[in-house]
Amino acid sequence: MDRLEDAQENLGRIYDTHIHSEGRSRKELLKMVVAGIKFANSCAFYPVRPRYGETLIDLFRKMETFEVERGRKVGMSIVPALGIHPRCIPQNWEMVVDYLEENPPKIFGEIGLESGENLEVEVLKKQLSVAKKLDVPCIIHTPRKNKIEITRKILDILEELNFPEDLAVVDHVSLETVGDVLVNGYHAGLTVEEGKLSAEDVLLILIKYGSERLVLNSDTGFGSLEYLSVPRTVSFLVEKGVEKEDLDKISFENAKNFFRT
Amino acid sequence: MDRLEDAQENLGRIYDTHIHSEGRSRKELLKMVVAGIKFANSCAFYPVRPRYGETLIDLFRKMETFEVERGRKVGMSIVPALGIHPRCIPQNWEMVVDYLEENPPKIFGEIGLESGENLEVEVLKKQLSVAKKLDVPCIIHTPRKNKIEITRKILDILEELNFPEDLAVVDHVSLETVGDVLVNGYHAGLTVEEGKLSAEDVLLILIKYGSERLVLNSDTGFGSLEYLSVPRTVSFLVEKGVEKEDLDKISFENAKNFFRT
Repeated sequence: MDRLEDAQENLGRIYDTHIHSEGRSRKELLKMVVAGIKFANSCAFYPVRPRYGETLIDLFRKMETFEVERGRKVGMSIVPALGIHPRCIPQNWEMVVDYLEENPPKIFGEIGLESGENLEVEVLKKQLSVAKKLDVPCIIHTPRKNKIEITRKILDILEELNFPEDLAVVDHVSLETVGDVLVNGYHAGLTVEEGKLSAEDVLLILIKYGSERLVLNSDTGFGSLEYLSVPRTVSFLVEKGVEKEDLDKISFENAKNFFRT
Repeated sequence: MDRLEDAQENLGRIYDTHIHSEGRSRKELLKMVVAGIKFANSCAFYPVRPRYGETLIDLFRKMETFEVERGRKVGMSIVPALGIHPRCIPQNWEMVVDYLEENPPKIFGEIGLESGENLEVEVLKKQLSVAKKLDVPCIIHTPRKNKIEITRKILDILEELNFPEDLAVVDHVSLETVGDVLVNGYHAGLTVEEGKLSAEDVLLILIKYGSERLVLNSDTGFGSLEYLSVPRTVSFLVEKGVEKEDLDKISFENAKNFFRT
């Protein structure tokens, strides 16, 4: 099979493991499907810090019904990832965690740390504890600022909680943090987006660490103009001669297995 | 000035009086601006019936900050229209009306009736009373189903409340309802969308009733693929030889005056 056929086959089987589908129109979701994205995890996020936990509960209800249906209409399996993002912590956040415990999502996300302040740590630990108890995989956000230090803090928290390795993908890794994540046994989320990783960075990471426990995503959502960065990256990797097996793993298989979808 | 110049001038000065900007991506909002839409009212709506009034209050906060800013970045003046849509009435809806009274929006919307049941009537009347007291223009939804009967019910409510004529645009009018709305002194919203009006319908209405108190909109949002129906309609009307003054009125001036933006 030649490279072009490889590309076509891979392009039709892509899992974008971290998007915010609410920020993309139906027309764009359709274009994503045409470009090969058949599965996508849509992560809970609210563009302003919500005043009320109730807002997040209604957001989860919306994501599990309306967003899933919106994806279905264009041929995309949208898997909602539900949780409290560190930039979206309302005052009465405990009611939200209680809701998640009573209504377990398929994926916890996007949870994690932004500034790393005490409240964020408390909310993250609480959500991780529930995810561990319920055996639910987690998408864990790392910030742009102080990425190395905050990633270290997250890894310490995971260790402190004895968090199962096969339930955590540490997301938005950089060239500097990816090794630390992988060596500790967790999955690493490679976000291809301006200001995060480039397709060239993904190639470097693949060459250095291999394709195990790596998953790709675009983090496309409310603010970004780009939404096809994952298929573009796959095309780039095909051009660069990456083996079909490795491509399959990072663009689809690893995610399917990890997220159990 | 020839027709083409007319078209270009009008195309650069369009007010889409009813959209749900949250359902369109930043890229599409940019394309709307390029097509001439410089002003748009973005109407509050929640795609599932919210369980909590708190969700709507956070939605209003989001629309007045994040959505306005998202528009600003692409050159569109987004005017939030805030209120309880008849399909989005939470149990504790009274707290939402209290919030709107304490934090008056520039426009009340999208309010109105869907099935016309008692709860909808109560919520509509309460919101209209506050809008009248605060002197705020209102975008009033009429449904697809039983449009004639429900429009009649809305006009009766407006009359019963002695509602100021210059504060109500009755939206999504049909060829059958537009006359009744205009003869009662209210503005009529012409929604160009599949299943509502066509550009040809708009032309018929213009010929029959003139351009006074008519405003155009797309109602584009979460579900629709189309978002340029208003500039397309303007182009169509230019082609059909509609006078520049009338075009200006229905595509821009009437809305600017009515919504005081």
